[in-house]
Amino acid sequence: MRVGGVAYRTIWVAEDGRSVEIIDQTRLPHEFVTLRLRSLDAAARAIRSMQVRGAPLIGVTAAYGVCLALRDDPSDAALEAACAALLATRPTAVNLRWALDEMRAILRDAPPAEREARAYARAAQLADEDVALCRAIGECGAPLIEAIGRGGDAPVNVLTHCNAGWLATVDWGTALAPVYVAAERGVDVHVWVDETRPRNQGASLTAWELLQHGVPHTVIADNAGGHLMRSGAVDLCITGSDRTTARGDVCNKIGTYLKALAARDNGVPFYVALPYSSIDWALEDGQAEIPVEERDPRELSHVLGRSAEGATVEVAILPEGSPVANPAFDVTPARLVTGLVTERGVCEASREGLLGLYPERA
Amino acid sequence: MRVGGVAYRTIWVAEDGRSVEIIDQTRLPHEFVTLRLRSLDAAARAIRSMQVRGAPLIGVTAAYGVCLALRDDPSDAALEAACAALLATRPTAVNLRWALDEMRAILRDAPPAEREARAYARAAQLADEDVALCRAIGECGAPLIEAIGRGGDAPVNVLTHCNAGWLATVDWGTALAPVYVAAERGVDVHVWVDETRPRNQGASLTAWELLQHGVPHTVIADNAGGHLMRSGAVDLCITGSDRTTARGDVCNKIGTYLKALAARDNGVPFYVALPYSSIDWALEDGQAEIPVEERDPRELSHVLGRSAEGATVEVAILPEGSPVANPAFDVTPARLVTGLVTERGVCEASREGLLGLYPERA
Repeated sequence: MRVGGVAYRTIWVAEDGRSVEIIDQTRLPHEFVTLRLRSLDAAARAIRSMQVRGAPLIGVTAAYGVCLALRDDPSDAALEAACAALLATRPTAVNLRWALDEMRAILRDAPPAEREARAYARAAQLADEDVALCRAIGECGAPLIEAIGRGGDAPVNVLTHCNAGWLATVDWGTALAPVYVAAERGVDVHVWVDETRPRNQGASLTAWELLQHGVPHTVIADNAGGHLMRSGAVDLCITGSDRTTARGDVCNKIGTYLKALAARDNGVPFYVALPYSSIDWALEDGQAEIPVEERDPRELSHVLGRSAEGATVEVAILPEGSPVANPAFDVTPARLVTGLVTERGVCEASREGLLGLYPERA
Repeated sequence: MRVGGVAYRTIWVAEDGRSVEIIDQTRLPHEFVTLRLRSLDAAARAIRSMQVRGAPLIGVTAAYGVCLALRDDPSDAALEAACAALLATRPTAVNLRWALDEMRAILRDAPPAEREARAYARAAQLADEDVALCRAIGECGAPLIEAIGRGGDAPVNVLTHCNAGWLATVDWGTALAPVYVAAERGVDVHVWVDETRPRNQGASLTAWELLQHGVPHTVIADNAGGHLMRSGAVDLCITGSDRTTARGDVCNKIGTYLKALAARDNGVPFYVALPYSSIDWALEDGQAEIPVEERDPRELSHVLGRSAEGATVEVAILPEGSPVANPAFDVTPARLVTGLVTERGVCEASREGLLGLYPERA
């Protein structure tokens, strides 16, 4: 998508054909800075420090991390060490493990002299595949927005939570892909952006990417969405999904469930956009079966921002001594989800619905 | 309630018997600072700058503002000028107007030489009445908590939103009064404190007052309550109310409605605690009839906190150029409210329920 009028992906190979460039997402929304990764260590650090985040983007960054390692040493031992180092950066990230398995599979039996070239080719393929997947989600979801837009000359109001935009993927995003595709097709679309406490991904990433690409939007407190839906100011909700169960329960950023409840109470359609890779066919009951990660209390007790002098400053907002709980995800039950938007189409949030799109899983 | 082991109210007359002391709530939660108000101007400034906030406390502060004005000049003209100046500080605050009307009523016909003494007596009475009112709400609501506590040895988990504690009143609070009374009676009670974006009254005021009084509590993001309720970690919710309609709709801090939806979805009782003065008998349908105030975008785009060096710093958290919407309240429909807790008892959130407690309104 566009940044200052220029088309970007979140990761790309630099002009030297070897090193890899990324957008340093920890500097957003206040500064747009790209970083050049020249080594395995730099790639691992980028993932660990969340300069890149979002499951698909983490996977592709890890793939390029393997490439960078093999430039220095294409041996079996180096390959295994690189995979182990990269996997350790975010041990629970499913896409990370998957991408490393893909890389290992094509490299293990290749002669060391050919490994570097094969690795770059496969990493580029993974990146392109992610772009195609997200674009397909966008094309499957855009008609939901277009159908509302046909009604009149007011903009279609979409509410989203967290960042499931192009910054979380290589391009297009998941939840925001239908928005970008609808906008590209001339639909007048406006996005209500949930701030998304405690990490503020909506305020710092979603707002930034919509602003850069030129999509009208308004940032709101997470508390505001219910009131907006009651007031008729939201036409549909679209969020992403970190993990989707076989019956259509959606584990996503904390707070998603509250918006799904408000959508149901007000007759607002609530869609969840996701690639096939987020579906965990082994799970049924998300609430019972998915352990919810408890994250660092500091995410809630401290806020990072930009001072009037332009410095990045972290400030404490809690009384010293007050305990904090910080669950990272919640589970929205399938009964509250109007539909799942995948790269293969839109389906009901149910086992039958998902099997209709993925019959090979029957 | 207690601060560092010492009993405080939020406002009191100083040892000189004339000037008035308050807690500077803009310095919380990082510093506990009391301020001495010696003039009408100081009282007006305290209200305007939100050094005092909360409808009941604003009303009592305005009453003392009249006292301070009359010390300097007990004339009719000075009385009227003082009331006008105080009313202008927060023109939409219902309690402010009410308190000033009360003061004017007993002072207008009094000889100027007696006005100062009468004013101090009436202001003290208003303060004491508020304390008694809140204590009564606490005694009516505490049995709801005690009844759950009787079940076992786990603490009773209460979730609250915003600050409807003693800092918003003269003492005890509204939503927190039942918690304080239950704790006083030996009930093991724990409070989940919603941060309450965008102004963070939960994080900065509710957490602070519970910490100071010694009530176990945990601060959470506003997004977390739904997940906690789904997980069985909340026994009941209690919030305050800025305005309650004759049929029991509750206009309260933005986000209250989302918690009421989650409570309903999980079979968690959702109570609203309020004094009679918050009931607007002329209103029925809160959503249709109450205009929701849109507040300064800066409340959302900037966060005030304490830097590592101990300085109070305001930081920007949004990309420059992203628009903000900041509705201050939402309306929770009566159908989602398990009961209203008033100074006269607990009733159903309905016209019949309210008339049962306030038959004189029939």
